[in-house]
Amino acid sequence: MSSLQAPAGLQPSASYSFTMRIELRQLPGAFASVAHAVGAEGAILGAIDLVRVDQRGVTRDVTVACVDAQHGERVVNAVKALDGIKVVSVSDRTFLMHKGGKIEVVGKVPIKTRDDLSMAYTPGVARVSSAIAADPEAAWTLTIKGHTVAVVSDGTAVLGLGDIGPEAAMPVMEGKAMLFKELGGVDAFPLCVNTTDVDEIVKLVEQVAPTFGGINLEDIAAPRCFEIERRLKESLDIPVFHDDQHGTAVVVLAALLNALRVVRKRAEDVRVVVVGAGAAGLACAKIILEHGVEDLISCDINGILHPDRPDLEGELAAMAARTNKRGLRGTANDALVGADVVVGVSAPGAFSADAVKTMAKDAIVFAMANPTPEVQPEACWEHVTIMATGRSDYPNQINNVLAFPGIFRGALDVRARGIDEAMKLAAARAIASVIPEEELGPEYIVPSVFNRNVAPAVAAAVAAAAIESGIARRERLPVQGAPPTEEMKLPGF
Amino acid sequence: MSSLQAPAGLQPSASYSFTMRIELRQLPGAFASVAHAVGAEGAILGAIDLVRVDQRGVTRDVTVACVDAQHGERVVNAVKALDGIKVVSVSDRTFLMHKGGKIEVVGKVPIKTRDDLSMAYTPGVARVSSAIAADPEAAWTLTIKGHTVAVVSDGTAVLGLGDIGPEAAMPVMEGKAMLFKELGGVDAFPLCVNTTDVDEIVKLVEQVAPTFGGINLEDIAAPRCFEIERRLKESLDIPVFHDDQHGTAVVVLAALLNALRVVRKRAEDVRVVVVGAGAAGLACAKIILEHGVEDLISCDINGILHPDRPDLEGELAAMAARTNKRGLRGTANDALVGADVVVGVSAPGAFSADAVKTMAKDAIVFAMANPTPEVQPEACWEHVTIMATGRSDYPNQINNVLAFPGIFRGALDVRARGIDEAMKLAAARAIASVIPEEELGPEYIVPSVFNRNVAPAVAAAVAAAAIESGIARRERLPVQGAPPTEEMKLPGF
Repeated sequence: MSSLQAPAGLQPSASYSFTMRIELRQLPGAFASVAHAVGAEGAILGAIDLVRVDQRGVTRDVTVACVDAQHGERVVNAVKALDGIKVVSVSDRTFLMHKGGKIEVVGKVPIKTRDDLSMAYTPGVARVSSAIAADPEAAWTLTIKGHTVAVVSDGTAVLGLGDIGPEAAMPVMEGKAMLFKELGGVDAFPLCVNTTDVDEIVKLVEQVAPTFGGINLEDIAAPRCFEIERRLKESLDIPVFHDDQHGTAVVVLAALLNALRVVRKRAEDVRVVVVGAGAAGLACAKIILEHGVEDLISCDINGILHPDRPDLEGELAAMAARTNKRGLRGTANDALVGADVVVGVSAPGAFSADAVKTMAKDAIVFAMANPTPEVQPEACWEHVTIMATGRSDYPNQINNVLAFPGIFRGALDVRARGIDEAMKLAAARAIASVIPEEELGPEYIVPSVFNRNVAPAVAAAVAAAAIESGIARRERLPVQGAPPTEEMKLPGF
Repeated sequence: MSSLQAPAGLQPSASYSFTMRIELRQLPGAFASVAHAVGAEGAILGAIDLVRVDQRGVTRDVTVACVDAQHGERVVNAVKALDGIKVVSVSDRTFLMHKGGKIEVVGKVPIKTRDDLSMAYTPGVARVSSAIAADPEAAWTLTIKGHTVAVVSDGTAVLGLGDIGPEAAMPVMEGKAMLFKELGGVDAFPLCVNTTDVDEIVKLVEQVAPTFGGINLEDIAAPRCFEIERRLKESLDIPVFHDDQHGTAVVVLAALLNALRVVRKRAEDVRVVVVGAGAAGLACAKIILEHGVEDLISCDINGILHPDRPDLEGELAAMAARTNKRGLRGTANDALVGADVVVGVSAPGAFSADAVKTMAKDAIVFAMANPTPEVQPEACWEHVTIMATGRSDYPNQINNVLAFPGIFRGALDVRARGIDEAMKLAAARAIASVIPEEELGPEYIVPSVFNRNVAPAVAAAVAAAAIESGIARRERLPVQGAPPTEEMKLPGF
């Protein structure tokens, strides 16, 4: 019953949960009335903690998961309207989690004694600095460079929010840094910059590069992101990776590899439509073409790309020239007729649930607009065999988290000078391969973002590909547990 | 006996210690010969660990503290020359400590479940970002900004090493970040940049400023450091603090306050000579003048500053104009005749032990060149009442570590827009006040860098001064343990 009351087609989730402190008079059925009010609004009751009992009654903290903030307000108002219940305060669990930010910078060795200080800082550190001045490559061993990346954003294309500026982009970049560490053992630090000028961003990243072993560009709007990445790849000798393009493309390809296995179709036989021709959409189209799909249609906000469209230039014109071999014209919805796969990397409503019904048998739908998918999964479960989104609260989450920690881990392990096409394809195959053939199914085409096998598998595949490409500085991985004395000899011995 | 063999005037320290793996034949007196050889070279035997015993003999790891790398080589060669002893490897403890760098970036909240991920990252993070986009001041609460500073260096004036470049500066900046965290609870991240252009550094720092709550400029050569700091103080609304200038000045003043107490002299009566007119020297001279010293002589590499010197301009000319009221001319050594205090912030040999002998009774000598002091303390113990250096391996270490963690902690606690003169003077007095009057003595004028009372005392004094000055955004300190629900209300409630 209760789910009928939730906003159409959406499910309550932890991302919109709040904790409400309520005082209840000590009457039979008092809490039941709260529980009923929450359920009647289509929200889900979570943890219930007792705060105190006194002469006025019982105080409890009640956690409730909702669909969105407006839904939360309705739930709170419904509880406020109850007789004998007082809502003392309402705190948002997501906001609480962000209080004071989500990352910190900590020392790896203790500094508790004079000896510690005289080695980690002055005067001992002077010898270490001198050694690096004599041989700058030693920075890979003697500083954080070898395991640290910058997450650089100008805040112009953040999630589905668009141009919200550098301050507002920080929570996303901090979350990214947490995931780099948690899943890849990579230290990442966010640099949100208050310039959107291509030349200035390029120069800034070039200038801070000595500190880092890699650069993760993030949430920079197209078409500037293309030029920024291209120029930095040329000028820097460390990996530069625009995750919105390539991270997304790698995970989409991984998901597509497994989805095609599930429905027993071959890449060279299927019709694929990519809806969205921003940074991510173009990168997805490119990697899918590289993998061997021959019938691909790319759509932007004005519909199907074809070479006759006068409004296309640059990357879009290039994409129009190499896709749409059947010469289709029209909207994204028109392109879906008879398609086997649609990959949405655009915005809510970019294609419709009705259009999904016109797709071929065993349709595969990736609706990855964030945070609200192109079509709500609830609206087309019946018409598709495999549905995936970018959200963590549905099955088949196509999330860059599966790619970037392992890709950078692998690149850093071999001190790669860049991340090339072979490394990206290797990463996609490694992600797909983590799910054993016998476990593959319509609701399990990508591993969980918490699957601890993913990042090591990706890192190993990426490192091997980098060595194979010759883009690695190291020709083999460092041996874990090798005696450090070998590398740390006193100069002169 | 052994100390007679150490290089003249220097003491072995942990900062030059190494671990030597040796194989000894199982003969009586085998280890004694090693211990004797180490001692005869003037080095100090530390930890001795048993690695293994087999038919070839005993393998041990022996840690030895030396004066410098050359001294270490002599010790190892002496051991190598022993009969029946094989040196398997020599590893430098300071280099080992730096392997892989000294800091890491870690998450403050766990990301172990889907709920965690949907709150810390997509989709939940979108609401937090939206809240900041609507009110950029919310970044102080909802991102790392409120407790995070950038440690920015171009690597042009690192310790006593000079212009060694950004990569080589990293170990120093990483050490700084460790100390920020360990002592001040401040998260600091090093940004070593490969430009030395004033305009470019200013622009870069302005561009990354949204990420940070403060900027610690570090090891940037004069005179560029003055302009960079001045321009950034004008353009940014967060504290900008060139630690080499102001951190040093604050701790020097703290030490001077207590030193004068010990020798029972008054600031307005003493003659002070500051040797060194770089960034630190000028800042020390300024804060000492501000405190009320009237007879101050400043010296640069060409000797005593006086207004007739044709080679002075800018900051140096200004300093010449307001000091040297007795019109002295000559070298730094000339200036020391009859002086009560000499503050050395220059280079080894900038003034001599012989000149120190010409100072007034109860002479106070701060010889802070890093890593090698202007005069070796061993060469003038007998002629001075109070001796201090910048080193951690002598008494009275005048180390910025006493200042910067607490200064930034205090500034961040009240979200200060800058760090003004009143905040610096408050910091110096707070550092000095940590040592109780009855414990003050010639070898105890500054608290230990490990004294956990220092940073909180400095932070409280600096925060209070910032509130008093009106430079703070907050008019009172946040109450620790206040219910977070108050700040984290759902929008609309």
